[in-house]
Amino acid sequence: MNNNKVKPSILPGFMELLPKEQQKFNDIVNKITKVYEENGCLPMDTPIIEKSEVLLAKSAGETEKQVYRFNKGSNDLSLRFDLTVPLARYVAQYFNDLNFPFKRYQVGKVYRGERNQRGRYREFYQCDLDIIGNEKLSISNDALVISMVSKGFKAIGLKDYKFQISNRKILSSILTEIGVNEITEVMILIDKYDKIGKEEFEKNLNDLIGEEKSSYITNVMNIAGSNEKILEELKSLNLESEKFRSGIEELENVINMLSILGVEEDEYLINLKIIRGLDYYTGTVFETFLIGNEGYGSICSGGRYDNLAQNYTDRLLPGVGISIGLTRLFFVLGEIGFLDNYVVKNPVEYLILPIGDTLNYCGEIFRKLEAEGKTSQIYLEDGKLKKKMNYADKLGINKVILVGEDEAASKLVKIKDMVSGEESIKGFSEI
Amino acid sequence: MNNNKVKPSILPGFMELLPKEQQKFNDIVNKITKVYEENGCLPMDTPIIEKSEVLLAKSAGETEKQVYRFNKGSNDLSLRFDLTVPLARYVAQYFNDLNFPFKRYQVGKVYRGERNQRGRYREFYQCDLDIIGNEKLSISNDALVISMVSKGFKAIGLKDYKFQISNRKILSSILTEIGVNEITEVMILIDKYDKIGKEEFEKNLNDLIGEEKSSYITNVMNIAGSNEKILEELKSLNLESEKFRSGIEELENVINMLSILGVEEDEYLINLKIIRGLDYYTGTVFETFLIGNEGYGSICSGGRYDNLAQNYTDRLLPGVGISIGLTRLFFVLGEIGFLDNYVVKNPVEYLILPIGDTLNYCGEIFRKLEAEGKTSQIYLEDGKLKKKMNYADKLGINKVILVGEDEAASKLVKIKDMVSGEESIKGFSEI
Repeated sequence: MNNNKVKPSILPGFMELLPKEQQKFNDIVNKITKVYEENGCLPMDTPIIEKSEVLLAKSAGETEKQVYRFNKGSNDLSLRFDLTVPLARYVAQYFNDLNFPFKRYQVGKVYRGERNQRGRYREFYQCDLDIIGNEKLSISNDALVISMVSKGFKAIGLKDYKFQISNRKILSSILTEIGVNEITEVMILIDKYDKIGKEEFEKNLNDLIGEEKSSYITNVMNIAGSNEKILEELKSLNLESEKFRSGIEELENVINMLSILGVEEDEYLINLKIIRGLDYYTGTVFETFLIGNEGYGSICSGGRYDNLAQNYTDRLLPGVGISIGLTRLFFVLGEIGFLDNYVVKNPVEYLILPIGDTLNYCGEIFRKLEAEGKTSQIYLEDGKLKKKMNYADKLGINKVILVGEDEAASKLVKIKDMVSGEESIKGFSEI
Repeated sequence: MNNNKVKPSILPGFMELLPKEQQKFNDIVNKITKVYEENGCLPMDTPIIEKSEVLLAKSAGETEKQVYRFNKGSNDLSLRFDLTVPLARYVAQYFNDLNFPFKRYQVGKVYRGERNQRGRYREFYQCDLDIIGNEKLSISNDALVISMVSKGFKAIGLKDYKFQISNRKILSSILTEIGVNEITEVMILIDKYDKIGKEEFEKNLNDLIGEEKSSYITNVMNIAGSNEKILEELKSLNLESEKFRSGIEELENVINMLSILGVEEDEYLINLKIIRGLDYYTGTVFETFLIGNEGYGSICSGGRYDNLAQNYTDRLLPGVGISIGLTRLFFVLGEIGFLDNYVVKNPVEYLILPIGDTLNYCGEIFRKLEAEGKTSQIYLEDGKLKKKMNYADKLGINKVILVGEDEAASKLVKIKDMVSGEESIKGFSEI
């Protein structure tokens, strides 16, 4: 290579795929978003660059340090770091033009300057689904968003996942009820449970709120069994607070609605350890794990927020959302071997191979197939037959139409099935 | 509004659509890219952020000033300003993993800090289609890319466009032949013909190369008539140069191949005034105008380049590409009224309306429809019937299933056709 060439490369933390992988990625996105659309979600798209004052209206804490922020002319700009803040801005901005409940999905790239490590991306696709109400929004929607993801996963053939569902009102009201003052600290600790493990968790919790309260909370968190049994046991705690009662009722409603919407019993589980950090969420929260591959973390998370757009408007806009980190999911599906068996239908059925001076006749065949709704492409390059057949093979095209000068003269075609290896001669009208 | 609210707004020069418009935009993109895929083009996606040294390996001239460029940590980064430079980098980088001819399409946002004016965007979608050969690439591909766009336009119902095609070898070889030294300057001038008009063009050309040569060139440029006649007249110039002969032969090949691929005679026209600036292109060039709306400029342009990736590799990679500026096209289609009549099929057929306590039965209906491949959504909010019907109306859902407690008790449904206004009662099994 000459010295004046620049080495072709991309930045670390950016995913780029070869065509066959890209086809799988796109197929997964298309199948999931098709489910969303057929369930009434509208498509949305927002700019990747926004004003920093808008994107960072709410101090984004840890996230803010990771934001790609720069000036262009006199403008202070940032690249979006999620799709929720742009949604909040969008709903506030176009409030009068939207129908509520406003159901939208959005697939787009977001940017975070994370520490570079395997499976962590600085540019990644999110696929977000949110339902926003005007002033109020039925709790049934919390089940609806989960049911849509469930159908999306089924559409791509993904099994062995489990939605783990909780309602933040339950644990936080229990903490209040038993006289814990350090509610935030305890919630942060519970959020870390899976990371730090049972032993360290219990030690830390003891240190924080004392052994008696700690043991009460640990017992509640670890109530196990069927969803029905967990709900029964929670109710039997007989706590009086309105918030507790409301958390239980919401959770019960969500569980009930999941089955009304056709989600199977074995797809979900109540897990009170699910907290989802401290941002946004005020009621229902959920994460999703691949059974047997929990170590990769949640592949899809979300929850209910009381008021989406409070930084931009005085209107009360409650909502519930669920987000799939598509780039990360694709990475995980690769790691666990799921993609090896993921087959994308080749959109091209036939490759037409001119052999000798038969391009005109090949064009006739091409146009005939097209008129009949069959897809084909003509191989237009010179070269030996072997090279041409090799091209069909590499592209995974199943049927090759060989068109020599004899075939052209007698208006025939020779069709080779690349799977069985069989060849057959047909008349032009029989293709 | 409180003072602590941030006004929800986006930057000037960024397009954002309401859901109904977004559906149209997406539908247009989906239909065009489906055609590309069915004609053998593979999907591709590249990062929006790349290393500045890679993206700006070739001095981008005027474009470079418009690039969004910034530092993050110690990295000098730029947002891509087109999809061609990333393609060149991609093909050089993954050369060994690709099959040639490599046909790919890419839809993605690109960024240019252009002067802010109506219909000009700083963030806009491009839809690029390129075919890259390894060392050589048949001239037939130049017609193939045009034919795919033609089919894409037909798929969205767009008529009244005209591909205007030339080959840069023709005019530049003629200029050499008649002894013009200022070839670059003349080409730049011809490129501006439509902008400055006939009179100013001829005056400038006279000043540049004298009246005699100017008049010869002007006559050639203005040869009119059918494509066949233009080719005949060009041939009859009887110029000897190899480059001229090759330009004519290529152009004739492209025209011939267009009809083999099923592009209609009235969709294209030879126009020697098409130059496409000074970058990249070395042979075939084309632009596309909306008949009667030429003032909006070309909606889709491209051409042949001898060597795509010379900044990254010593390999010779000739190619031909065609690019639709989707955001700009969408703007123009709005301006000329095309979008007013553009109908997107509603992916949801039924809205199920629970009236009273019938959610369980509504779920049964929902699951039955789903099992039969019919799409529906349940309206989950409280409220008056009128408000619920209004929701169906605004979302353009054609059939509403009204489920009162009577219907639930007797396992019936009341179906209202929102178009005809007709109502009918059916048994559960007859839905």
